[in-house]
Amino acid sequence: MKVVVTGAGGFVGRQLVSRLLERGDTVVALDAQAGGIAHGVRAVAGDLGAKAVRDAALAGGCDALVHLATVPGGAAEADPGASRRINVDAMYDLLLEASALRPGLRVVYASSIAVFGDPLPAHVDDGTPLSPKMIYGGHKAMMEDAVAMMSNRGLIDGVTVRLPGILARPKGPSGMKSAFMSNLFHALKAGEAFTCPVSASGMIWAQSVARCAENFVHALSLDTALLPPTRAVTLPAQRISMRDLAAEVARQCGVSEDLVTYDADAELEAAFAAQPPLATPAAEKAGFTHDGDIASLVRSALATL
Amino acid sequence: MKVVVTGAGGFVGRQLVSRLLERGDTVVALDAQAGGIAHGVRAVAGDLGAKAVRDAALAGGCDALVHLATVPGGAAEADPGASRRINVDAMYDLLLEASALRPGLRVVYASSIAVFGDPLPAHVDDGTPLSPKMIYGGHKAMMEDAVAMMSNRGLIDGVTVRLPGILARPKGPSGMKSAFMSNLFHALKAGEAFTCPVSASGMIWAQSVARCAENFVHALSLDTALLPPTRAVTLPAQRISMRDLAAEVARQCGVSEDLVTYDADAELEAAFAAQPPLATPAAEKAGFTHDGDIASLVRSALATL
Repeated sequence: MKVVVTGAGGFVGRQLVSRLLERGDTVVALDAQAGGIAHGVRAVAGDLGAKAVRDAALAGGCDALVHLATVPGGAAEADPGASRRINVDAMYDLLLEASALRPGLRVVYASSIAVFGDPLPAHVDDGTPLSPKMIYGGHKAMMEDAVAMMSNRGLIDGVTVRLPGILARPKGPSGMKSAFMSNLFHALKAGEAFTCPVSASGMIWAQSVARCAENFVHALSLDTALLPPTRAVTLPAQRISMRDLAAEVARQCGVSEDLVTYDADAELEAAFAAQPPLATPAAEKAGFTHDGDIASLVRSALATL
Repeated sequence: MKVVVTGAGGFVGRQLVSRLLERGDTVVALDAQAGGIAHGVRAVAGDLGAKAVRDAALAGGCDALVHLATVPGGAAEADPGASRRINVDAMYDLLLEASALRPGLRVVYASSIAVFGDPLPAHVDDGTPLSPKMIYGGHKAMMEDAVAMMSNRGLIDGVTVRLPGILARPKGPSGMKSAFMSNLFHALKAGEAFTCPVSASGMIWAQSVARCAENFVHALSLDTALLPPTRAVTLPAQRISMRDLAAEVARQCGVSEDLVTYDADAELEAAFAAQPPLATPAAEKAGFTHDGDIASLVRSALATL
């Protein structure tokens, strides 16, 4: 199938594009930056907010669209107008334009657990109300409704997946406030000390980037009758403590877990390391999975570092 | 208090403005049309999508905003772009602009049961997922998320109320597909025959316009800690059959209920007269009410005809 992937040069996008190419799909890779795109794809670089850029990506048609491109959480807080322009307006336009070319096409939309609020409620499951606080989460929630509405009209056949923490991101500034989870991997792999900005007992929800990419591939072909009426599911994730994560990363890297010390930032702790019990039966029913156990999660995350 | 009311010249707006003036509030009445605005208010006429018009309404500041202005359901289906421009973009701008002048102001937002979909699910309560199908419902749902997000950030102090069928609207084209419910009142009051476009056994959710205006007045001062995390409640409504409604209207108008015949349109029936059991505990906890019984509902609706 021919798949347009937005945000294809990003962390999840590159993994996904590799998998799609492996299975023989034709890929159009749209990204704000020209670099970082795999060989064997048609690459389109430019601002998603520009119609000409979207038109270039859609030229020649497509069977499905995976929409990963986003102004991420930290960047959206810093510039709410940019988030509105890209995360709401440009996405809405893109869905209408893709639908006009290929009515009813499969659209897989990367939303976020930020739709549930900050801090998260005491328990999260498929009935948890959306109550975003971050600009990013608010805009993601708005577009979840748009995906549901357009799907109910037959304009698209949408699947919204809310991503938990994805491990491990590349080094360097990503605009993601949750980058510390990945920086732990980079430090220990290099045998370096790491000061963790959340506490050892802080609880995170995590999934490896390889598993995340597999979940996106699954979303491209799943039977949407299995989804809730919102078309949105929270991806399954393992709920683990930073201490347990650090110990397993250290073990697999062959270094001492004493390299990790903790100096908790209250705001980061509340936003990303106080994650409550999570139940995701709707996603599991639709065939989405997490990595299984902490050793598999860490092994998978280290393999793609 | 000083209240800006958008859509003030509309059906619900006029009732609300009257009530606010009665209790001594200062009212700025914004509407697309210059006519239909009560005396004793500062009236601003113009397109809500124009910044100059919004600025004129907000000039001089305000303590609260009641946002009734909308491209209604039928009109939104006919022109989705107009709905997006007014029901999403202009409202989002208005909330930011009002918040910039008066951070944390009370905002009461008129949403719709259309957020639940078309047809409605088999039962509607406070846990029913949003799955809009109509453009109108999709855009209303998107802005429910925006109200929640802006409220969680302290930009506004928002209350979203989802309106059921409101009785009785004035005669004439309103853009509302549900106008038939009101046309029943006009016909029987005039002693005229009425062909009802849904079946006698069709079930509707209804509230009188006077009660609806009282609910908006209540929303201006309620303690928002009583609301769910979404800030949104479905207003309490009586669930009644068209047959029972017609019989009571005929009785109070002193005419025969045989004036009413039924010729059901499948689409209207599915959208507006197949309304399932409704439970609204969240709204009731926050102090919202319906008319009590069918005689009170009809009496109230006839009084404002």
